[in-house]
Amino acid sequence: MVSSLYLSSTAGRFASGIQRKQLCNSSPRLSQRYQRCSVRVQASGDKEKVLAILYEAKDGADNPDLLSCVENELGLRKFLEEQGHEYVVTADKDGDDSEMEKQLQDATIFISTPFHPGYLTRERLDKAPKLKLAITAGIGSDHVDLNAAADNGLTVAEATGSNNVSTAEQAVMQILVLVRNFVPAHEQIAEGGWDIGHVCKNAYDLENKCIGIVGAGRIGRLVMERLKAFSVGTIMYFDYNRLPEETEKEFNCKFTEFDELVEKAEVLSIHLPLSDKTEGMFGEEVLGRMKKGSWLVNVSRGAICDRDAVAKALEDGQLGGYAGDVWAPQPPPKDHPWRTMPFNGMTPHYAGNTIDAQKRYTKATKEMLQCWFDEKPFPDQYYIVREGKKADQYS
Amino acid sequence: MVSSLYLSSTAGRFASGIQRKQLCNSSPRLSQRYQRCSVRVQASGDKEKVLAILYEAKDGADNPDLLSCVENELGLRKFLEEQGHEYVVTADKDGDDSEMEKQLQDATIFISTPFHPGYLTRERLDKAPKLKLAITAGIGSDHVDLNAAADNGLTVAEATGSNNVSTAEQAVMQILVLVRNFVPAHEQIAEGGWDIGHVCKNAYDLENKCIGIVGAGRIGRLVMERLKAFSVGTIMYFDYNRLPEETEKEFNCKFTEFDELVEKAEVLSIHLPLSDKTEGMFGEEVLGRMKKGSWLVNVSRGAICDRDAVAKALEDGQLGGYAGDVWAPQPPPKDHPWRTMPFNGMTPHYAGNTIDAQKRYTKATKEMLQCWFDEKPFPDQYYIVREGKKADQYS
Repeated sequence: MVSSLYLSSTAGRFASGIQRKQLCNSSPRLSQRYQRCSVRVQASGDKEKVLAILYEAKDGADNPDLLSCVENELGLRKFLEEQGHEYVVTADKDGDDSEMEKQLQDATIFISTPFHPGYLTRERLDKAPKLKLAITAGIGSDHVDLNAAADNGLTVAEATGSNNVSTAEQAVMQILVLVRNFVPAHEQIAEGGWDIGHVCKNAYDLENKCIGIVGAGRIGRLVMERLKAFSVGTIMYFDYNRLPEETEKEFNCKFTEFDELVEKAEVLSIHLPLSDKTEGMFGEEVLGRMKKGSWLVNVSRGAICDRDAVAKALEDGQLGGYAGDVWAPQPPPKDHPWRTMPFNGMTPHYAGNTIDAQKRYTKATKEMLQCWFDEKPFPDQYYIVREGKKADQYS
Repeated sequence: MVSSLYLSSTAGRFASGIQRKQLCNSSPRLSQRYQRCSVRVQASGDKEKVLAILYEAKDGADNPDLLSCVENELGLRKFLEEQGHEYVVTADKDGDDSEMEKQLQDATIFISTPFHPGYLTRERLDKAPKLKLAITAGIGSDHVDLNAAADNGLTVAEATGSNNVSTAEQAVMQILVLVRNFVPAHEQIAEGGWDIGHVCKNAYDLENKCIGIVGAGRIGRLVMERLKAFSVGTIMYFDYNRLPEETEKEFNCKFTEFDELVEKAEVLSIHLPLSDKTEGMFGEEVLGRMKKGSWLVNVSRGAICDRDAVAKALEDGQLGGYAGDVWAPQPPPKDHPWRTMPFNGMTPHYAGNTIDAQKRYTKATKEMLQCWFDEKPFPDQYYIVREGKKADQYS
């Protein structure tokens, strides 16, 4: 895969900061684009200080394939130190006195995962003058204030594609778990009970159910592909960009305006990035317009759904179930209502962090780092912010 | 669907018991077949006493679509009484003093479900001289002693096909639940925790996993069809009858001898009827030959797997997980080890009893009863024992 990274290339990022500033001064259009930033890029031979924010796995670290934890350090220590770079790994990420705050002061490269996100706020970026690159080991970089990162001339990149399948599988599993009423059924058995009626009155087949997919990007399409095999009913999808006709045919799906989809879907699955546009998208009003008893799955980002409105819709029976593995914030407080609301199939944020996914995204992270050291570009699709300019879908 | 029932026909069951006896006397081959039985068939205008064993749903019965409970009586009371038949429904099925024992004495038609099975043992059949027909509302008639039923000249029939999809969906869901380590993840959240490492060290993707399907009948094939969409690795299957080549191509599956399948599968799913051949099939020896850490799913019948051997294999880590919804006996005692063994994704027996499945099998049950009253045959595939003769796959 490393070799393929080299094939994908654009020229701009090889200009040094000084060259870039000269460009800004000489071109009014470029000047506007870069006016707030001094672009921060890799210079040949730089010794980097890499700061990684990972979760503590404790007993989990016994499995050496569990790479994404503090203990196993994404498998990067030898790789980085052999090239003369410094590598600091910590789980302590919140608050002014945290290790993250301390280490950010002179870190040049930052790595985090969406599972235990180290939040790169504007305040923190302003206090991290040397930071040039923020890598997300995984997919979803909303723990980074992208506007602030752009203003500061940073590059933000993620391992696009590395855990799409993992996340799509989780969505399909959680759809089945809700529609088939798995959690109450399992809990009944574990607690010594046997009351079929109590389980079955809320248990249905997925077959023939009307599906709504909100967000038909890479993950949304994998979900549709899997659902098709269950002989579901109509698959409606909504996205800001309509899919090509042949893709619609391939996935047997039908473009549907958001309002219509919300009102018709029996199973609704969200596959959107978190942005200003999507935050709080599923609040009281939208949930109220959903089909009574419908099932909602969200493996994208917790903040796309309104915490209290979701809990209330389940209490009222407006929703038949809610499942997902994403929360706002992460970890959620002990009293977060989604932990205990009825008919929930919640999990901690781990869908994209299976052992198989970790293999893929740690490999991609290592490859990005090597590109950076070699002053070579990443594959285009890895960039979220490229030397101060946000990728199209985030701007 | 009623009309299609009429299309499928064989002649024999219209012979009366007396005619049949005459046949037995006149033909040595037939005589051997029927020597132990006096065939019991419907005679025109008989007023039947129909006894149904169903579970009590309590609060579940509030959902009028929950037809399979004592309270909602399979939706058959009006249908039966309007035709002058008697209809007795009870959940009380175990022991000599049970309502089932009492009512069986003069019942002519017996109905039960696999979810709350009324066991028709030889002793009970011997004490039910008028019983002619036992219908399983659902699939799986192992609660009936088929040899004894045959000896007594009974007909045993089930709603073949009525909940295949429901059961296949349950298997795929429970495969995902095990491979992706859903239960420990959900429990952690419900209990107020957040420890990604503890969840992820045992969480994998289904993609690329080597699948073994034991039993490639109607349900096994539906499972393969659904798994294929998850881009799994090789799909091996074992069955006593090899599938036609074009079916193997359709499901992208490969016939594999049982021993080889057991040793190679990372996910093994059982789709066999319970019979003398399959009872205890997955005992200590076979489990010991499975791939270490592999996942075993059984939505067929509990007694195909050895209770204590399964629990031990999970304790030892030989199995990575076990899930299913079938038990021996049903309900299982409160201290049944499958309720609490590690990495289990067990549910009570409800997979084929979703609201959607109930619609289908109560419709089929009603149609069988109407055929019986009209002295018309059932579709061939519904017969398990036909007037004292076991269907080929059970003999």
